[in-house]
Amino acid sequence: MHMSIKIGIVGATGYTGVELLRLLAQHPEAEIITVTSRSTAGTTLSDYFPSLRGIYDHLIFQHPDQADLSKCDLVFFATPNGVAMHEAPLLLTQGIKVIDLSADYRIKDVAVWQKWYPFTHASPEWITKAVYGLAELNRTAITQAQLVANPGCYPTCVSLPLLPLLQQQCLIHDMPLIADCKSGVSGAGRKANTGNLFAECSDNFKAYGISGHRHLPEIRQTLNLLQPSSGNSLVFVPHLTPLIRGMHATIYIQVKEGCNPYQLIADYYQSSPFVDVMPAGSAPETRSVRGANLCRISIQPAPQNNTWIILSVIDNLVKGAAGQAVQNMNIMFGFDEKSGLNLIPLLP
Amino acid sequence: MHMSIKIGIVGATGYTGVELLRLLAQHPEAEIITVTSRSTAGTTLSDYFPSLRGIYDHLIFQHPDQADLSKCDLVFFATPNGVAMHEAPLLLTQGIKVIDLSADYRIKDVAVWQKWYPFTHASPEWITKAVYGLAELNRTAITQAQLVANPGCYPTCVSLPLLPLLQQQCLIHDMPLIADCKSGVSGAGRKANTGNLFAECSDNFKAYGISGHRHLPEIRQTLNLLQPSSGNSLVFVPHLTPLIRGMHATIYIQVKEGCNPYQLIADYYQSSPFVDVMPAGSAPETRSVRGANLCRISIQPAPQNNTWIILSVIDNLVKGAAGQAVQNMNIMFGFDEKSGLNLIPLLP
Amino acid sequence: MHMSIKIGIVGATGYTGVELLRLLAQHPEAEIITVTSRSTAGTTLSDYFPSLRGIYDHLIFQHPDQADLSKCDLVFFATPNGVAMHEAPLLLTQGIKVIDLSADYRIKDVAVWQKWYPFTHASPEWITKAVYGLAELNRTAITQAQLVANPGCYPTCVSLPLLPLLQQQCLIHDMPLIADCKSGVSGAGRKANTGNLFAECSDNFKAYGISGHRHLPEIRQTLNLLQPSSGNSLVFVPHLTPLIRGMHATIYIQVKEGCNPYQLIADYYQSSPFVDVMPAGSAPETRSVRGANLCRISIQPAPQNNTWIILSVIDNLVKGAAGQAVQNMNIMFGFDEKSGLNLIPLLP
Amino acid sequence: MHMSIKIGIVGATGYTGVELLRLLAQHPEAEIITVTSRSTAGTTLSDYFPSLRGIYDHLIFQHPDQADLSKCDLVFFATPNGVAMHEAPLLLTQGIKVIDLSADYRIKDVAVWQKWYPFTHASPEWITKAVYGLAELNRTAITQAQLVANPGCYPTCVSLPLLPLLQQQCLIHDMPLIADCKSGVSGAGRKANTGNLFAECSDNFKAYGISGHRHLPEIRQTLNLLQPSSGNSLVFVPHLTPLIRGMHATIYIQVKEGCNPYQLIADYYQSSPFVDVMPAGSAPETRSVRGANLCRISIQPAPQNNTWIILSVIDNLVKGAAGQAVQNMNIMFGFDEKSGLNLIPLLP
Repeated sequence: MHMSIKIGIVGATGYTGVELLRLLAQHPEAEIITVTSRSTAGTTLSDYFPSLRGIYDHLIFQHPDQADLSKCDLVFFATPNGVAMHEAPLLLTQGIKVIDLSADYRIKDVAVWQKWYPFTHASPEWITKAVYGLAELNRTAITQAQLVANPGCYPTCVSLPLLPLLQQQCLIHDMPLIADCKSGVSGAGRKANTGNLFAECSDNFKAYGISGHRHLPEIRQTLNLLQPSSGNSLVFVPHLTPLIRGMHATIYIQVKEGCNPYQLIADYYQSSPFVDVMPAGSAPETRSVRGANLCRISIQPAPQNNTWIILSVIDNLVKGAAGQAVQNMNIMFGFDEKSGLNLIPLLP
Repeated sequence: MHMSIKIGIVGATGYTGVELLRLLAQHPEAEIITVTSRSTAGTTLSDYFPSLRGIYDHLIFQHPDQADLSKCDLVFFATPNGVAMHEAPLLLTQGIKVIDLSADYRIKDVAVWQKWYPFTHASPEWITKAVYGLAELNRTAITQAQLVANPGCYPTCVSLPLLPLLQQQCLIHDMPLIADCKSGVSGAGRKANTGNLFAECSDNFKAYGISGHRHLPEIRQTLNLLQPSSGNSLVFVPHLTPLIRGMHATIYIQVKEGCNPYQLIADYYQSSPFVDVMPAGSAPETRSVRGANLCRISIQPAPQNNTWIILSVIDNLVKGAAGQAVQNMNIMFGFDEKSGLNLIPLLP
Repeated sequence: MHMSIKIGIVGATGYTGVELLRLLAQHPEAEIITVTSRSTAGTTLSDYFPSLRGIYDHLIFQHPDQADLSKCDLVFFATPNGVAMHEAPLLLTQGIKVIDLSADYRIKDVAVWQKWYPFTHASPEWITKAVYGLAELNRTAITQAQLVANPGCYPTCVSLPLLPLLQQQCLIHDMPLIADCKSGVSGAGRKANTGNLFAECSDNFKAYGISGHRHLPEIRQTLNLLQPSSGNSLVFVPHLTPLIRGMHATIYIQVKEGCNPYQLIADYYQSSPFVDVMPAGSAPETRSVRGANLCRISIQPAPQNNTWIILSVIDNLVKGAAGQAVQNMNIMFGFDEKSGLNLIPLLP
Repeated sequence: MHMSIKIGIVGATGYTGVELLRLLAQHPEAEIITVTSRSTAGTTLSDYFPSLRGIYDHLIFQHPDQADLSKCDLVFFATPNGVAMHEAPLLLTQGIKVIDLSADYRIKDVAVWQKWYPFTHASPEWITKAVYGLAELNRTAITQAQLVANPGCYPTCVSLPLLPLLQQQCLIHDMPLIADCKSGVSGAGRKANTGNLFAECSDNFKAYGISGHRHLPEIRQTLNLLQPSSGNSLVFVPHLTPLIRGMHATIYIQVKEGCNPYQLIADYYQSSPFVDVMPAGSAPETRSVRGANLCRISIQPAPQNNTWIILSVIDNLVKGAAGQAVQNMNIMFGFDEKSGLNLIPLLP
């Protein structure tokens, strides 16, 4: 007998939404029964996303106020920040599982969350119950989770290579931990915004959010959890680069005598399906993970200096969003963790 | 029992080669046993293409002079023009099937071929035996073929929407048939070439090959075959546009009284798995087929004029090359034509 | 004695506005005294456009309701359609000259204009007085103009190569005249719009506006003016290509026996400062005019067909907008037509 | 009387060559009399670079073995590394001035140079006489120089913001000095190279040269010269980003108590024509210097950390190559330092 779960997607018109639709179409145990959208209610999915013609011809966007999600086993929120915190609790109390791709349940300290996001949190009681969906860190807890807070793209790209080092308390206290990150433009979502126009972003490179990006407290939370106070040393500078998809973190760390970052990271991810530690001397390209649920990592010492350089790449829409969400779904429902995620990067 | 065929790829370091590798990795009935390359012999496949790490870790490029292809059921030639005509015949006489992605066996008239390609053809006896691998035209013949000449990208993009009209002799004699085509840069292959450098092609648009592009006689051959002398009216202007992948043909035709191009094309492709006729008034985007073995077509009359405008898009590396080759393989070996080709376009 | 004129720019925050600012900064006879903008009133110009730091540090955007334009000799409207028709007349009656970069005064037949633009025209009496600012056609009239309607980008790119042929009545009556045009994304302006986001336009190519683009009646008007009814044969298909700047028209025409398009066009533009007829067999690239007030044209017969192919490229923001406006200013005020326009294309 | 100098350019077919041609065309005191190129000898300059049609129609590429450079007052070498060291000495002994845009005379320690470049230096006696052409550091020496070694692009982008800090010995000894740099693809030159193809670089981001880039010893030399041993702390990681032009350095430094980097840098460049220190809190975009001889810098403390973050952008072909060379020419010949360099960035 083939088991499949019934799925709803709230807010399926953005980039994480359409990416969920792409991934779940290839998933043997998933059946999407409801997609909602306030702006496109009544539109056939395949008219809105011609790339999905022939795949989802039966689905029509429903208005969120009219959609019945109660038949779902699982609902993904692919909504802007501040929506899931209002709408998820009702589903959760009905026993429906929820994976929230927004930031609503990522930060455990509600005061910190409220400092970075312009809302009073509507359901703080669910923050503690939420499991932070970085599977490579929390796989066991995710198995039992009813609500998963899917990590942000920068936190995924930066945290994955650091997990093994933090767990061994390898970072030297009080030395700067620098994460110089570069993101493709789809990371900013599909909202009309002058700054993300083609004629603004193409052939242009810039830093942004230096005085404080919302992913900073999220990364810091993971760091401090694993190696106390290490998060306080974090310097995080995001940059916008003219890619559609792709994220590259260049991380500079100082490690204690006796720690071999390459060995620790390679060991930690030896049998991981989605984290690839590359040979010494290599440099991962963002296109080598394009469209796939992968994080590729290179680690090497700086020449003539005691700094180590870590390079980490993901597709911000896959391992940085929708792919990681499907990975979490697989873990939550006891499917093969790779189910629906046997994606081969598109190169060139 | 699961049947699978043994496959060799000659010249697997270019873009059509790596795309074949991507597609065949997901194909349930295909097993690649040999890949050859003159320039990278001895290199592990996944070192050369990091996007394939974890997929083909056992494969090593073999030197073409040392590779044993005799155990293959099928050999793909993903080589520059002029290679297959020398190397394919030996395999063919051994009973091995061959799909040639180069132009060596596409043109039936060897004199015409030799006018456009700078070679004396080395195996003209195989030209007549070769089947032109446009499945939507030659499906039955491909079933029996031992040698398939896989069509060029421009000919695929231009011919597919015209097939139904030509078969009905719809085009008005002697009126210009204009194919204004735009190709992404990967169509030029992976050879180092100043004109294809990023700093030359990015933020730039130009026509090229107006005085005569090699795909002109190939398109003309198909046209003349179906509606005599229609190919002589063809005006074909290719352009280079800053896409990695993607091809867009804008075709202007004059049709005889009583012909309804939209209806004819829609009927012809009603149950075609890989040709999608879009609703009237739409305009297909190249990204709506990115990475997938699809041709999407829109057809509409020009406002206030008796010209019809046909828009046709493909991914030049998939339906325009490697995907079409796998489709031909499926037909030749009696597999489901869609096997391994359930690819969903990557958008954005 | 050095004469200079005082200039105001209404709506200087878009792409044509910032391009005017770039060009006029290098103009020896122009002094910008006022820039207005509803959305950025109070902001220093160089804070808004850091590319202009050090050039216009004294200028502050003024609210249009508070700006005093009465001291200007010339006001440019770089506003959306529908603004100049309300605000220009007051200035004109004060004796101030106006160059309108929007479409408000381009179409002579107000009924046609109102069919294509969603407004009732507010100052139809000025339409007849306006001179259509295609200098290569109307240079003498522009000398005397008080109000110049600066042409659209597509009309400029398509009309320039056709002018000499139309004047000689060269086009065959009733044969299709096809203008297959490709535009960079800046042509759509700087308005926040989902369709113009980087992640939508990059690595993508599509046609749009096939059922009717607003530049169609403008091109048709020029055609019909010069060769009666020739505009009715026009088939105009615009496409969006991932360029910041640049426009390429591929024009297919049928000419009467005895007409030599190459010779006619070359003769017409022999001493033109801004139209460059390239050698036979060449193909102009958009980057060869990037940033410069140039139109480069190639003309050649289609091989084995009586169609002629004309290729025409401009920078849509320069010869297609701000550069042409400065050229018109030079003619209106009796300056050297090239003044401030000695721009060398930026390549690469 | 108008004085102008006679100029030769050796190797004028690459990107620095064509950029020199663009800049010198607008220079009131410069007359180019000879351009040489081994590969294109006999070709008219404007046939080779259509962007220069109408500008240099009289110039024809001469073969370097036949060109007479003896009438030049100044010769630019825009050649690959290893050419100027052979050919410049003969010109220098004739009293001709030379600006070398390659790396041949940049490194004072010939043993270090030979370690990073695969040559035995052919004219080490000229290394000591050469002046390193970073005008903002060596303006006085350049006034007297006969031979100027024009700096590399990365060294320019990284060194300019650091000069004021190094001169005040502000960097904390032994703390890592991290320069995370991102370059557009034109920085790799115009040589045909698979890695720089459009289909390889577009929509892709990667680090490269981590184990050692040739610009590392050049940056280190400047650092050590100004603050002894500071260069040893340098960690330099270059990245390739899909820009045609543009370079962005993100520099992370630790400064001694009492040093205010913002103030020091702002003071140092207060009246500098080509270095723009931006307001606190800003982030310079590469496009804000596109086509102009500018370096824009932002400086700010990392939030909650004692690290300072410096952002520095240049156009790698202008302030990073040809523009800086013209600036050096102006200083060497006593022209206004800004002559020919009043370039306004092209935005968008």
